[in-house]
Amino acid sequence: MKATILIRPKAGILDPQGQAVETGLGHLGFTVRNAHVGRLVELEVEATDSADAHAQIERMCEQLLANPLIESYEIVVEAAA
Amino acid sequence: MKATILIRPKAGILDPQGQAVETGLGHLGFTVRNAHVGRLVELEVEATDSADAHAQIERMCEQLLANPLIESYEIVVEAAA
Repeated sequence: MKATILIRPKAGILDPQGQAVETGLGHLGFTVRNAHVGRLVELEVEATDSADAHAQIERMCEQLLANPLIESYEIVVEAAA
Repeated sequence: MKATILIRPKAGILDPQGQAVETGLGHLGFTVRNAHVGRLVELEVEATDSADAHAQIERMCEQLLANPLIESYEIVVEAAA
């Protein structure tokens, strides 16, 4: 089952990559605000249904994919083909 | 206007982060396949409409946000509030 995980810096946490993007784009003549940079993880997991896939991926996020102290994550499980 | 940019390694390009995620999750007892790690950029841009926002962000991706040689990008502009 295919899934996409969106990992974002939590609000209020310093986001140096987002600041660098804002500054860099400003130097190129673009005006942007509130730039934030996170990670995008896509994977396929063996699961009986989408609830099972969601539960497995939640454990993966807590254990390896994200740092729950400073990052939040959003799990999107694709409907089975 | 808010926008989300999903930046992924192109198919066929070596993705060491994705491989590390697969290996790491395997060591934790999870079975996953085809893991890929990309970047997620969220920002707000001044634009007259969503087509303008899309065009501006495409230029940002080509110039700074992505490496078009090895990465593909997907731009999602949110409907104006």
